[in-house]
Order: sequence, then structure tokens, then C-alpha cells
Amino acid sequence: MGRMSEKVIINCLPLTDRERQAFSSATAGTGVEQHFVGNPLQRGTMSWQASVPAELRDAATAVIGNIPPADCAQLPHLEWLQTWSAGVDRYVAPGVLGELVQVTNATGAYGQTVSEHLFAMMWALMRNLPMYARQQTEHRWHDLGRALTPNGANVLIIGTGDIGSHFATLCKAVGAHTIGVRRDASRPADGIDEMHDFSELDQLLPDADVIALAVPAAPDTTHLIDGRRLTMLKSTAILLNAGRGNAIEPRALARALAEDQLHGAGLDVTEPEPLPADSPLWDEPHCLITPHVAGGNHLAVTEDRIVAIALGNVRRYAHGEALTNRRR
Amino acid sequence: MGRMSEKVIINCLPLTDRERQAFSSATAGTGVEQHFVGNPLQRGTMSWQASVPAELRDAATAVIGNIPPADCAQLPHLEWLQTWSAGVDRYVAPGVLGELVQVTNATGAYGQTVSEHLFAMMWALMRNLPMYARQQTEHRWHDLGRALTPNGANVLIIGTGDIGSHFATLCKAVGAHTIGVRRDASRPADGIDEMHDFSELDQLLPDADVIALAVPAAPDTTHLIDGRRLTMLKSTAILLNAGRGNAIEPRALARALAEDQLHGAGLDVTEPEPLPADSPLWDEPHCLITPHVAGGNHLAVTEDRIVAIALGNVRRYAHGEALTNRRR
Repeated sequence: MGRMSEKVIINCLPLTDRERQAFSSATAGTGVEQHFVGNPLQRGTMSWQASVPAELRDAATAVIGNIPPADCAQLPHLEWLQTWSAGVDRYVAPGVLGELVQVTNATGAYGQTVSEHLFAMMWALMRNLPMYARQQTEHRWHDLGRALTPNGANVLIIGTGDIGSHFATLCKAVGAHTIGVRRDASRPADGIDEMHDFSELDQLLPDADVIALAVPAAPDTTHLIDGRRLTMLKSTAILLNAGRGNAIEPRALARALAEDQLHGAGLDVTEPEPLPADSPLWDEPHCLITPHVAGGNHLAVTEDRIVAIALGNVRRYAHGEALTNRRR
Repeated sequence: MGRMSEKVIINCLPLTDRERQAFSSATAGTGVEQHFVGNPLQRGTMSWQASVPAELRDAATAVIGNIPPADCAQLPHLEWLQTWSAGVDRYVAPGVLGELVQVTNATGAYGQTVSEHLFAMMWALMRNLPMYARQQTEHRWHDLGRALTPNGANVLIIGTGDIGSHFATLCKAVGAHTIGVRRDASRPADGIDEMHDFSELDQLLPDADVIALAVPAAPDTTHLIDGRRLTMLKSTAILLNAGRGNAIEPRALARALAEDQLHGAGLDVTEPEPLPADSPLWDEPHCLITPHVAGGNHLAVTEDRIVAIALGNVRRYAHGEALTNRRR
């Protein structure tokens, strides 16, 4: 085959010099080859790119980075792909990668940024900041009345993985009571005071001051919050979504906001995306819309965590140990 | 004199039935008379009103509530005024009240609402929410790039009384390092990791990720943050003000924001107020302006605290004990 080594890692991360040294040290003495093909200038940007140079395709046994799924067919000896995303849907789709190729992701890197975005949206809606921002465009100095607080509030978190658990921890730190909903209510999660399963959702909604959605895409979470459930909410409730846009029925939400069935909604994800220009949600003063920016590389620390996760797995791969963050 | 009692309290609070009972119990058996003249319908509104009915003016020895300062001259036997505001400037001004009249305020009732408003403004600016709200009015779905986090940040709090200390506690709870500045740096404050005095401010500003102003009005805090100090800030710094508007030089701030000398500013107080319609701050996308709504009765819990402070002092007054929250 002409390969110099049994294992060849193509590392597409935009590494600093110091990080590159750490990756080199992680494989030192193992006979594992590592090629650094990432562009350091992409560090600090929202768009990291990954591709395996033509001359390394035959040798590559491992790739760090979200290469185009179509390129996977050109890597005949691939046995491991480490993504820098949390989602790996495109790689585990049928026919993209051979059955035996391991896929690991960057879960754990995004909990802080997404949960902090949810937290910021919650506070902004509680203090009516989106409405004050609208008044500001009119140079208008006018008191909009009552504000809300998470101190003593019931915060209902639907989906208690990395993101939901981080968000719960933030809410608890400022005095909230946190209630989690997950498929298996016997599994605890950090930051959650009490856990329930999805069958109890209708009983929980009327007491919730904040409802935060951090559920993955799944058939049974589509329109989980629909018109019927929106009518169950407190008039002072705040609904937040940073999971998947289709967890909320958008027309039902626009109607509920127009009819003051809840205090406000903070949406980082919508159905569909981008939100169409004619959606009534854009003009709803109690709705705060951000364009799917909770996650990604929006916090510098996310990049550091992605690098740390990849580094740990490179060390394990080089030493023949089991990888973490396996999705397949 | 025809008075039934030595001490007559005119209670102008908008009390619930249960609270009125608690106030009655507090004076029971002491011979102190209490007249409830507050309008319960004002509870939950932003505007409580207080006045002493004409037939009680001669008898009144104590008043609970912010009566018009001009009315004070009509209360010849007044010995104590309990305000529901934190500020008492209008009552301690020369000639308003007799020298021996005690004045107590509602300090302690506002720390939560003002500090939470500062906290909400900080998070909103960190996640670029005011700019996303502007895009929303244009139905625009566009990623604005990097966000910030208080986790690991240096939060500089200038003025570490009730509000500054509460704000520090919130920031610490989400992972910030808190640095306080007060006149007497030897006095500690809850939530503050390290305390400095005003002479050290120029050394502290360049390392601050967040600068929160919660200073009372005083000659030496006027334009405390001026053009010179704004040039010292990090380009990622966030400046917040919920103390007095004149602590920041407004034209210098508008210039600094336009020149990207800092990430953003959150202003609940301005110089002057209302902010004039032609102020360049209104149109500055990195400036978030709210119309002096951090305090007041914007949180329901503030009302409960005002009532609790007044109740404690009514009990003390009726039993001849020293009052708390004395300002004179």
C-alpha cells in the first residue's frame, strides 16, 4: 500500500501552535501519523472548513473535522471520524460511511453557549428588553410596566442533556426551581431538582413560569408545543426554544402571543429556517428571534472544548483505547 | 389638643387585608393609633400615592409613604416619615421637615429588582440581543458573530451597596470574578471577591469585562466615566448604569460606541432624563436603553419588601425602639 503507518490521522482543526504540539505529543511514540491540514486563520470564525487533501485520501484512517459527506466515499481506509459538531445526522445516514467506521462528536462543547443563550433570552424577556429595544428605534422613553424574575420561579426544562442540564444549573444559581422532562425520568441530570417523563407534560405546563425546549429532532417531538398546550400556560409564562425549530407549532405560537396567552417567547430555532419573511412572529413584540446562533462557535470557549474533546480521542485512538463521545 | 393618643400613624401603603391585620397587630396594646388611608387598588401598579387626610393632619406623628414634600408643613406634630422609596433627597432638603423628624427609607427593597435589571442588560448585550431585535424589525435572519460570557469574566462593580452587592452575587453565581469599588475599601460587601477604593479605578478599568455603575448621586461621581476612561476599556467591555445618569458623560459614550472602543452599553439611567430625542445614543446599535425601569415597583417582590420594612419600623415605633433604615 505504500503507507508509512497503520494509522494516519488527518487533523482539520484550526489549531494554535501550542495545541498542535499537544496533538503531536498525544501520538508520540505510537507510530501513528498525524497530518495537520487545518487553517489556523479560521480560528475565531463561525465557519471552520475541513477536507482531506487528495494525496492523503488513501492513507487516512481517521479524520478530525466535518468533511463533506460526499467525500467520505473517497477515504477507503477510514475507521474513525471525529466531528466538531454535535449533530452527526449527515454521517450516520445510510450509505455515507462504511458500517464499521466509528463516529464521535463534540457533545459537551456546546452546552455552555446554548444554555447561556437560552438564559440571556429568558432574562431579556423577563425585563421586557425586546420591547424596549423596539421603543428605542423610535427614540421613545416609556415605562412598559411589570417585570418578572426567575428567583422563586418554576423553570420547566424539556430535554435534559448537555444543554438542558447546563441551563438548569444557571437557573438554579439565580434562585429558580428546576423541573426536568426526559424520556427516562429515572436518569438524573445535573441542575434538575425534580425529573418527570413526557407523559406528565400536560400536568406540568400550567405551573411553569419558564418552559425551555432543548429536545433533539425526533418524530414524537414535532409540534410538541402546539395550540392545545399553549392554552395551558400561565399568562406570565416564557417559552424558550434552542433545540429544534419544529418542537413548536409556529402559527399556534403567533396566535397565542397575539392573544396574550403567555408573556413572551424566545426562539433561536424556528420552523422552517430561516424564518420566512412573512411569518407573523417577526412582528410580535413579545417574541424575540435570533437566527440559530445559540450554538456554533459563538463563544470562544466552545472552540477550546472542541479541541480538548478531539485531543482526548486522538490520544485514545493512538493508544488503542475506546473513544469517548461515540455516536456509532 | 383633642388627640386620642400620643402617637398616630398615617399608613398610606396599598395593603392587602392580611397585611393590614399584621400592621394592626404590630401596634396592638401600645396605645398607638393607626389610620389606614392607602388604596389597595394601587397595589401592583407603578404609581403609589400618599396623602394625609385633612382631618388627621394635626394628629399625625408618623407617616408611611411618599407624601408631597410641600404637605410636610401641614403636619405640625410629625416625628417620623417612612418612605417607600430608597431616595429621600426631597425630604431631607433644607426647610421641608423639622430638624428632629426622623426619616427612614426602603433601602433593601430595591436591590433585587435593580440588580436583576443590570444582569438582564449584561446578558442581552453579551448575546447581541439588542442588535438581533433591530434585525427582527426588518424580518432579517442574519448571524452577527461572536458572543460573550460572564463565566470567567472580570466584573467591576462601582458602588457596592444593596444593588451593587446583589448584582455581584448574581455574577458570581454564573462564574464571574467580582471586583468592587467603594469609598472605604476596608468595608466588605456580599458577593464581592476583591474590594478597591476609587483611587484605583484607572488601574482596574483596562482588565474589566463588565463595568456596572450603581453609585448614588454625589459631586465626585459626576461624569465618573468620561472620554478619558472610556479609552481605557477593552474593546469587548460592557458598560452598565443603573445608578445615576450623570455618572457617564453621554457624548463621550456615544463617541466611544461609534468608534468600537467597547462592546456595548446598557443604560437604565441617562443624563438628562428622559433621554432627549436627538441623543445619538438612541441610534447606537450597541447601546441598550431602558427608561429608568430597573427599580420602582417593577417586581412584585419589591412591594412585599417595602411593606415588610415599614411593618418592622411600625412595630419598633409603637414600642419605642430605635428605627431601622434611618437616613436622618
